[in-house]
Amino acid sequence: MAKKYVYYFSKEKSDGDTTMKYLLGGKGSNLAEMCNIGLPVPPGFTITTEVCKYYNENDKKYPKELVGQVETDIKKLEKLLGKKFGDKKNPLLLSVRSGAAVSMPGMMDTVLNLGLNDEAVEGLAALTGNPRFAWDSYRRFIQMFSDVAMGVPHHSFEHSLEEVKRGIAQRKGIKDVESLFQEALNKLIPDTALEGDDLKELVAKYKEIYKKHKKSEFPQNPKEQLWYAVNAVFGSWSNNRAVAYREINNITGLVGTAVNVQAMVFGNMGDDSGTGVGFTRDPSIGDNKLYGEFLMNAQGEDVVAGIRTPLPISELKKENKEVYNQLQDIRLKLEKHYTDMQDFEFTIENKKLFMLQTRAGKRTAHSEIKIAVDMVNEKLISKETAIMRVKPEQIDQLLHPMFDLDEEKKTKVFSKSGLPASPGAALGQAVFTAEDAEAWKKDGKDVILCRLETSPEDIRGMYAAKGILTARGGMTSHAAVVARGMGKCCVAGAGDIHIDGKTKVMKVGAVVVKEGDWISLNGSKGIVYIGKIKLIPPKMSGPFGILMKWVNEYKRLGVRANADTPNDTKVALSFGAEGIGLTRTEHMFFEGDRIVAFRRMISVAPEVKRLRDLIDDETDSEIIEQAKKDLKQPLEKYLQALKDLLPLQRKDFEGIFKELKGLPCTIRFLDPPLHEFLPHDEKGQKALSAALGTDFNKVKDIVAGMLESNPMLGHRGCRLGITYPEITEMQTRAIVEAALNVGKKGIKVKPEIMIPLVGNVKEFTLQKEIVLKTIEEVKKQKKIKKLPFDIIIGTMIEVPRAAMTADEIAKEAEFFSFGTNDLTQMGCGFSRDDAGKFLGDYVKLGIYEEDPFQSLDIKGVGRLVQTAVDLGKSTRKDIKLGICGEHGGDPKSVEFCHKIGLNYVSCSPFRIPIARLAAAQIVIKEKVINLKQRKK
Amino acid sequence: MAKKYVYYFSKEKSDGDTTMKYLLGGKGSNLAEMCNIGLPVPPGFTITTEVCKYYNENDKKYPKELVGQVETDIKKLEKLLGKKFGDKKNPLLLSVRSGAAVSMPGMMDTVLNLGLNDEAVEGLAALTGNPRFAWDSYRRFIQMFSDVAMGVPHHSFEHSLEEVKRGIAQRKGIKDVESLFQEALNKLIPDTALEGDDLKELVAKYKEIYKKHKKSEFPQNPKEQLWYAVNAVFGSWSNNRAVAYREINNITGLVGTAVNVQAMVFGNMGDDSGTGVGFTRDPSIGDNKLYGEFLMNAQGEDVVAGIRTPLPISELKKENKEVYNQLQDIRLKLEKHYTDMQDFEFTIENKKLFMLQTRAGKRTAHSEIKIAVDMVNEKLISKETAIMRVKPEQIDQLLHPMFDLDEEKKTKVFSKSGLPASPGAALGQAVFTAEDAEAWKKDGKDVILCRLETSPEDIRGMYAAKGILTARGGMTSHAAVVARGMGKCCVAGAGDIHIDGKTKVMKVGAVVVKEGDWISLNGSKGIVYIGKIKLIPPKMSGPFGILMKWVNEYKRLGVRANADTPNDTKVALSFGAEGIGLTRTEHMFFEGDRIVAFRRMISVAPEVKRLRDLIDDETDSEIIEQAKKDLKQPLEKYLQALKDLLPLQRKDFEGIFKELKGLPCTIRFLDPPLHEFLPHDEKGQKALSAALGTDFNKVKDIVAGMLESNPMLGHRGCRLGITYPEITEMQTRAIVEAALNVGKKGIKVKPEIMIPLVGNVKEFTLQKEIVLKTIEEVKKQKKIKKLPFDIIIGTMIEVPRAAMTADEIAKEAEFFSFGTNDLTQMGCGFSRDDAGKFLGDYVKLGIYEEDPFQSLDIKGVGRLVQTAVDLGKSTRKDIKLGICGEHGGDPKSVEFCHKIGLNYVSCSPFRIPIARLAAAQIVIKEKVINLKQRKK
Repeated sequence: MAKKYVYYFSKEKSDGDTTMKYLLGGKGSNLAEMCNIGLPVPPGFTITTEVCKYYNENDKKYPKELVGQVETDIKKLEKLLGKKFGDKKNPLLLSVRSGAAVSMPGMMDTVLNLGLNDEAVEGLAALTGNPRFAWDSYRRFIQMFSDVAMGVPHHSFEHSLEEVKRGIAQRKGIKDVESLFQEALNKLIPDTALEGDDLKELVAKYKEIYKKHKKSEFPQNPKEQLWYAVNAVFGSWSNNRAVAYREINNITGLVGTAVNVQAMVFGNMGDDSGTGVGFTRDPSIGDNKLYGEFLMNAQGEDVVAGIRTPLPISELKKENKEVYNQLQDIRLKLEKHYTDMQDFEFTIENKKLFMLQTRAGKRTAHSEIKIAVDMVNEKLISKETAIMRVKPEQIDQLLHPMFDLDEEKKTKVFSKSGLPASPGAALGQAVFTAEDAEAWKKDGKDVILCRLETSPEDIRGMYAAKGILTARGGMTSHAAVVARGMGKCCVAGAGDIHIDGKTKVMKVGAVVVKEGDWISLNGSKGIVYIGKIKLIPPKMSGPFGILMKWVNEYKRLGVRANADTPNDTKVALSFGAEGIGLTRTEHMFFEGDRIVAFRRMISVAPEVKRLRDLIDDETDSEIIEQAKKDLKQPLEKYLQALKDLLPLQRKDFEGIFKELKGLPCTIRFLDPPLHEFLPHDEKGQKALSAALGTDFNKVKDIVAGMLESNPMLGHRGCRLGITYPEITEMQTRAIVEAALNVGKKGIKVKPEIMIPLVGNVKEFTLQKEIVLKTIEEVKKQKKIKKLPFDIIIGTMIEVPRAAMTADEIAKEAEFFSFGTNDLTQMGCGFSRDDAGKFLGDYVKLGIYEEDPFQSLDIKGVGRLVQTAVDLGKSTRKDIKLGICGEHGGDPKSVEFCHKIGLNYVSCSPFRIPIARLAAAQIVIKEKVINLKQRKK
Repeated sequence: MAKKYVYYFSKEKSDGDTTMKYLLGGKGSNLAEMCNIGLPVPPGFTITTEVCKYYNENDKKYPKELVGQVETDIKKLEKLLGKKFGDKKNPLLLSVRSGAAVSMPGMMDTVLNLGLNDEAVEGLAALTGNPRFAWDSYRRFIQMFSDVAMGVPHHSFEHSLEEVKRGIAQRKGIKDVESLFQEALNKLIPDTALEGDDLKELVAKYKEIYKKHKKSEFPQNPKEQLWYAVNAVFGSWSNNRAVAYREINNITGLVGTAVNVQAMVFGNMGDDSGTGVGFTRDPSIGDNKLYGEFLMNAQGEDVVAGIRTPLPISELKKENKEVYNQLQDIRLKLEKHYTDMQDFEFTIENKKLFMLQTRAGKRTAHSEIKIAVDMVNEKLISKETAIMRVKPEQIDQLLHPMFDLDEEKKTKVFSKSGLPASPGAALGQAVFTAEDAEAWKKDGKDVILCRLETSPEDIRGMYAAKGILTARGGMTSHAAVVARGMGKCCVAGAGDIHIDGKTKVMKVGAVVVKEGDWISLNGSKGIVYIGKIKLIPPKMSGPFGILMKWVNEYKRLGVRANADTPNDTKVALSFGAEGIGLTRTEHMFFEGDRIVAFRRMISVAPEVKRLRDLIDDETDSEIIEQAKKDLKQPLEKYLQALKDLLPLQRKDFEGIFKELKGLPCTIRFLDPPLHEFLPHDEKGQKALSAALGTDFNKVKDIVAGMLESNPMLGHRGCRLGITYPEITEMQTRAIVEAALNVGKKGIKVKPEIMIPLVGNVKEFTLQKEIVLKTIEEVKKQKKIKKLPFDIIIGTMIEVPRAAMTADEIAKEAEFFSFGTNDLTQMGCGFSRDDAGKFLGDYVKLGIYEEDPFQSLDIKGVGRLVQTAVDLGKSTRKDIKLGICGEHGGDPKSVEFCHKIGLNYVSCSPFRIPIARLAAAQIVIKEKVINLKQRKK
């Protein structure tokens, strides 16, 4: 038997059903399914997605069986409806619509009224006794068909419509018609004001336009029309916009679109006809009631085009109560059948209701959650289904202030080339330096800090700003990481913006934003607007809370937060964090005056190191004596600076421990290269020279001496603690003393010390020795025999070598936390700050499915993680395993972490609910897979 | 039974033998062994190295059994020799000498004549009838003992000797004695001119000096003297110099030094006594004859001290023919017994010969090889032993010009803080810019290029220079890598040199070298001298050639060269290379005018890329049209530049293929980040702007746009070929066309194309597609059906992710070449340019045994390599495997490569003999291990 390429559907009999989505597309499978459950659907047939694949792979040819199968189904339609395709008197008219398995804007969409020609239009007019309807249908068909199937742009026809309208206006005696603006003209002469003859005139003009563009007459043969339209749909699968859409939305695994050919029903047949769209529940707030809008005497495109304002669906009661009630019944039937909120299209033809489409309705995150929770309560779905239905990424919307959508749509875009680096929305006046941000903030102003890129020197300015905009850098650039950590809106790497920090101006092309100008950032989309947009604060609504409670019934993976301050900790706990997986101690050094003490320390540290080495290595006793003398002063300064930092850092830890009330807290020792803490501009260096009482040139030398060719692979992480063991001592002491102080108040503490950037077990043991020695010293000083709390010492696994030698490291380390940012940098050899130059291409070319800094590269970096887990467990069975890279909040990565048996993930506070949901979903997925396997 | 801590030896009976080196030290075990084979050795005993360990670990205490065991052996000596330790009339005198398993300068060395005191000296004088001898022995003992055992510096005693000599001179009536310089005084009154009374006076003075320093009398109790001396030896094991020596020379696994206590024999008993050192063959040229020197009426220290000039050993025939003949016999006996060249010490006491020490003699690389080859011919040793005896690193000396050692010793050192970055020696006038180097070279001058660090812009200056000196950078810095590639002497990272490129001056402290001053570099030691030192050209002497032929009978591993030019290739082949493992195509772009064409290409490339992306991504057809127009001009320039580069590159490959005559040649595509090819200084950018006819500011922008935060992890390697596929096309075409052209001349060719920096198999397949497509194009153009040579396509494994996914990559790649430089950088997270800041500490602290850039980090990076080998073979059984990082010429790394089954190593031409030797040695080692296991 020949392969089946065409699937017929009608109320009486359907070849397909809802399970055949990949073959028939979403639209096609649901049309068949609606027929199957007895809903009023105009009959038609669907050409499968396989044909699309064949067409695009075979030089735009079709399988030879196709034409025959299509003609057979057209005959079935003719027979059922008593009409004939191309008939002069009673023509069968068709709609042709695309429909892939996933809804996809950008493809050729719809051609209505196909089958009309110069003769059939007359027949239709005679048959319906409604010439206006017939000619209106024909002119719509010409315009739509020419645009989508033949490439004659839609706007080419607009001028003619205007001409005809001006003619009518003149005939009506309206003055100064020629000078009327189009808008005014449309108000005076709406489309509905055109009579049959006007439309006939318009058809003639349209055909002329077509001829001018295509150098041939408008096709009169209905079959020819049909195949042109089908070709256009299949061809549009691979046009730029559709390809781009699939890329952007990560849509893979589809072979093509299907084509749905369906008998026309007419909403424009008169005042007892109409068309509309409906939702089985309110898609924006989730209420359980029929929602939608309609237009009488109109075809579908009129609802979308916005020329006439549709009415709310409740008004349909007045127009046609029977149809309204019928829709209410259908709503319940659809929901019961699909057990999900549906978005449907309908047409009323001469008072009779037809369903043209149904699909799962798009909805806001808010309504998604409300509907899911409600449906559990209505016993329509299970808790598991409810949890699975909410996409983790959607929740993000609920956790940040957002713009009023309507206002946002109307606001002028400044740049849309940026990355959605830290979600939420923010508005403020543009400033171009961190200092200005601080100063303006002091004056009570809201500011957006706009920088080419940010560096640690900008931290205080970043704190002060409402949002951060950079022209350079990726999803894990400094700006992005810090902003996400702060839960602050950020658009990063907006490459089309030219920022001039000196003149305090930025431009995109000719559009200029000056200091003090208001701008608005959408950090969830990466868009920058000019002007202010109204903000809507985040709501932690009831159903959300309920869903997140259910989530905890399922998930096995722990979810901790990356948090550096008591305030971050508080926020994280309110989102359900079960502890802290990463406290970055260095961020504490940027606040307030501590940067001064810290800089005092690092500005003498290299000199201390140099002299110590000299004393160690030299054999000449005179040189040694001299070096010992020389060492005295810098060593004093160095130790004093550390002494000054100790109480500050201890206080930070106390604050965090108090918030945590006994939940675990992983504290990472100083990690970034020291030069990140020093000013790199002359102004800053002069200020530092004054603060230190050190010669300016010497300060310059110190900073220059710390610069590195590849700082990511340089003197940082535990390498600092090995060179400067006193830093490790100070940090250990701060942690232990803080824990003791908080413990005295009857609050439990559970500190975990984490040594960063270990690549070799010996680095770890050397640092661990210092930690243990310092703990003993504190105990001695405080006269304590045994610490009244447990403290464990572990490491980050972020250097590939550490992963490869994790068996050795696990003998010494009590826990591993995967630092997947660095593991990705070193594992893939991608500098997060530079990879922007090619990573876009890499994703486009399919080298990586996603940016590996956003979603863990499971095939590559994941193998390193897996290796480390296996090796680690081989020497320490019960080793605690977590992840604290940016991936800890990425649902796919969370899934991977669950599968390889980590104990927890840790992510920024604002992603905690996302991670929790993802952790629950993978448990449910596994359950489903297990069930399926058991059935086999 | 109590543990044995003391091992007795005498001609009659010895507790030890030569196999007990780790317990008795080299000296102790060989003293016992010489006794065993019947050589005349004064009796004595050895306190074991275990005692040293105990002493240093137990707060300077000894095992309780020790004293008893020592006293027992002293009694044996007393009985054997008929003398008594501390006796007033016939005292037993002892020497106390240190001796670890490995000879180690820096430890306390020797105390002679121990046992003398105020009474015993009189007895000795009476017994020998030689008061001069007795008092001379006592004063020597006081000075030596005070210095080495009691910490009273040697020079403290010098003034007294001078005083006594001036007294004698005055007595002799010499005028102006007080104003005589010390040297003149020593000539007038040599030590031998001192009579018994003078020496007695001197002893009194020495004892005063001792008292002044130590606030106590000189110890008179011989046992007390003995234990002081033993303590000093054991204590010196852990002094700074000894620890530093072990660190520098990678001496690990020793527990301590032994102490040898031996009955004294006296070379200073009169004119029929004497002392000397001998070698069983000539240690500097390897001739098979007795070699050495001696002094009559002297103790060992006199030979070393250089106050009297020793006589060549052939002169001994005249002094004492019998002893001379005896030494000739001993020479043969020793060589037969030890089957190696020996370095020995002897003393003649009253015409009687005593052997005091023997050990394997130190020798030059030249004599090492000659002796080994001679001994095979003499059937003393096997070929295998000969091969094993030559240290691979030693060979390096033979492959480069070297300084005349005597001249070098006398020349003033400018800096010794540098690294031996590229071996050999060079002298020239200091210049401070690459341009100057070129200009001076043109004027016929020899120059040394002195830079803070070098960059690719300096390449032509580096070519022009005789040697390269940098103040910054490690063993794998740009200067070091390029210099080794060129076989050019280089001292890198001489941190104490302050180079001022502007004023063209460099300084170490107050010592200044100006432009044009002559300096000399020892690249094998990392030393910079002021002035000229005579150069000795390298010799490829006969025995060396023979040995290298033997090597090929054993080694299984292939040895290829990293070579970028026909000349490099020639050198490599002359050293025995079996092909080229790495041709870095980018080096070709720096030569002559091609850099201009190359810069033309990269200066428009980003614009081409930007517009192409726009055309791809944009949906607005107007913008697309505009972009297409805009693209035209830059695209033309870009393609033209590539077209210009093609014939140049093709010619390079032709030259290399011709040299290789069918040996394989692995060619790596363009690898470094593009900005390395652009000038970073204003002057260079202005010149480029003129050459390109592009606005200076635009040139600045282009360069700035290419800068990266972490260039090692940036836009380089195959990432370039993916962004700019036309570069890959051009390089493929150049290779294939060159191979065809050379093939036409009847010369075989075997090109292998290598895609660099692959981390993901898809990167490889995308590049491979371009290569295959281009080959097809060439074939079509040349009307060839099948290429007349094989061409294979493989990749470097240098990104950790590539190692972890090598199974995937091996499905596509026909060979792997491990780029262990980058694999180390990314695997360990060490930037080779920055790691100098902490890697020194890392080696000192034992975190890494050696600098992982010099010797492959087998435990970590090695695991990545091993993983890649295993995974690669799992999907392509016969995959060709090689290594082309800097480690390919490191013997330990070569050993590892052999063990994991690589097919070949590739290294710089000048290291090829080293790699070949190492490859043979591991085969022999394995054979020995297998034999041992079979015996078990």
